[in-house]
Amino acid sequence: MQASNQEWYFVERPAGEPTLDCFELRDGDVPTPRHGELLVRVRYLSVDPYMRGRMRDSASYAEPWAVGDVLRGGVVGEVVTSESPQYEAGDLVTGRATWSEYALLDADDAVPVDPAVADLPAYLGVLGMPGRTAYFGLLDVAEPRPGDTVVVSGAAGAVGSTVGQIAKLNGCRVVGFAGTDEKTAWLTDDLGFDAAINYRTTDAYRSALDDVAPDGVDVYFDNVGGPITDAVFTRLNVDARVAVCGQIAHYNAEETPTGPRKLPLLIAPRARVEGLLVTDHAPRFDDAREQLETWVANGDIDHRETIVEGLENAPDAFLGLFSGDNVGKQVVEVSE
Amino acid sequence: MQASNQEWYFVERPAGEPTLDCFELRDGDVPTPRHGELLVRVRYLSVDPYMRGRMRDSASYAEPWAVGDVLRGGVVGEVVTSESPQYEAGDLVTGRATWSEYALLDADDAVPVDPAVADLPAYLGVLGMPGRTAYFGLLDVAEPRPGDTVVVSGAAGAVGSTVGQIAKLNGCRVVGFAGTDEKTAWLTDDLGFDAAINYRTTDAYRSALDDVAPDGVDVYFDNVGGPITDAVFTRLNVDARVAVCGQIAHYNAEETPTGPRKLPLLIAPRARVEGLLVTDHAPRFDDAREQLETWVANGDIDHRETIVEGLENAPDAFLGLFSGDNVGKQVVEVSE
Repeated sequence: MQASNQEWYFVERPAGEPTLDCFELRDGDVPTPRHGELLVRVRYLSVDPYMRGRMRDSASYAEPWAVGDVLRGGVVGEVVTSESPQYEAGDLVTGRATWSEYALLDADDAVPVDPAVADLPAYLGVLGMPGRTAYFGLLDVAEPRPGDTVVVSGAAGAVGSTVGQIAKLNGCRVVGFAGTDEKTAWLTDDLGFDAAINYRTTDAYRSALDDVAPDGVDVYFDNVGGPITDAVFTRLNVDARVAVCGQIAHYNAEETPTGPRKLPLLIAPRARVEGLLVTDHAPRFDDAREQLETWVANGDIDHRETIVEGLENAPDAFLGLFSGDNVGKQVVEVSE
Repeated sequence: MQASNQEWYFVERPAGEPTLDCFELRDGDVPTPRHGELLVRVRYLSVDPYMRGRMRDSASYAEPWAVGDVLRGGVVGEVVTSESPQYEAGDLVTGRATWSEYALLDADDAVPVDPAVADLPAYLGVLGMPGRTAYFGLLDVAEPRPGDTVVVSGAAGAVGSTVGQIAKLNGCRVVGFAGTDEKTAWLTDDLGFDAAINYRTTDAYRSALDDVAPDGVDVYFDNVGGPITDAVFTRLNVDARVAVCGQIAHYNAEETPTGPRKLPLLIAPRARVEGLLVTDHAPRFDDAREQLETWVANGDIDHRETIVEGLENAPDAFLGLFSGDNVGKQVVEVSE
């Protein structure tokens, strides 16, 4: 095994749009696992929009990254050395670890990966945190009912694409907003969405919605915010439910963004809007994992990953999230 | 009995702030009750902020008023002629009827008024629709828990003043926003609010809140919208609940008002924001009525009404709602 270990550090807080200057690749030592730990060779690592929040110097649901910290996130890796009876060398696991070639995982926090169910990158997407976010956010927060019209923003992302398919499995009519024709085609042709709107080639979101959701909106799963959300709020049906999962349109704003006031729109429909964090549902993660694996194994839920090769390109992959470079889940292949 | 009957008509849709030109007082005939109806001499009539919504030419939860319609709302009156076995001449009742000296009520929709419990105007406030709105909006939508910090905007209005007192009865810490020192003094000195903020004499709403709600906000009952609401949203605790009852700050806006985007603020606290309409709770109105009468009779809930004298002044009383002229419930005394 090699003696050095490349690791990404967070070295500068961004003002507005993050840049490559926020990140620095350094050589470190391959760490030695202690009792209960696993040393893994990282195969794939995850870059996620929520990480932008960790770059801020203000408390939020995720602790802010300190300048000088090694970067951390979801990984899939192969066990090199196990100091736990739960795993042995050669096992494939997923969990939270550093952005590096080799990383330590707590064996208790690691979850086995089964390549017979899906390729490894899927364990960072539909079978990982984004899939569980979709599962609990849609089913527990938005509570879709058969016949509901469900609108999803960021619909071709890891969370949105899963949300739409779970909604279809629950008998809903599903409309997605996405940013390229390739993405909208994927949603309707492969994933079974009833309609998809390319938000970059129209700015008449309300009339576009009226065309494909003529009965109004019962559920809105919002990953994006901004003008798409403004439009959807004008079309909420009585008893509509809005799950606020992400607001990626605003994550890089330096000043509080402004927009049309939407609370007045909630009264007539008695609509409910609720923020969600997947970690609240941790006690039921195993249920979600099992159900999602079954759906994926049966072909009920399709998935896609956009793979950037090379640990050295991890910051680029992260930055690409904000320009919508990814179809499905964005991952970084660290080693083969 | 007199033969003519003065009645207020809606004669012009306002653009922006309504004016007296929207209303016209006409002489009509005293109507004749049919089977199941009551003819009442109107003693008090209610003017309410929600009526501004009915002046718009767009469907909302309340049917828009047609230009040329006689105005309608809550009244308390004395039965002159009863065509129902449920009531007899001299009975005091409340219900929905016309803005006029004499009005017809469906006996099935009328509710008896007991002057031993409270003076008649209270039946249009704490013991009427505003009281029920407070009751269901707070208890069913906002779900206060003992120890919660509850913030109320429009706290010295008919709904807000009742909300705060019900919250106190449920063991909450209660902070109200109101627009005069007379109002804030009423809230803290007479109604038992823990603190009140005069939103017209400070514009530092966030730090004012931090002073009196140092542990953040668990429940926000919003009657107003605008900058008060913007500030409260930045102080929501984990699992906070926001009941959107009214948005009077925006009712006269001709264009969709803009303001800071607040959905990003919902994610970290997993806050829930929900619009409410009291009519959804109609099956349980009797429960609320009974409970509110008990509280008022026992002195657990105090109330106040601002009374404008004379049917001819009803439009002025309505317009005054938007400048905050009323302390407690605004009513119009039509006859003694």
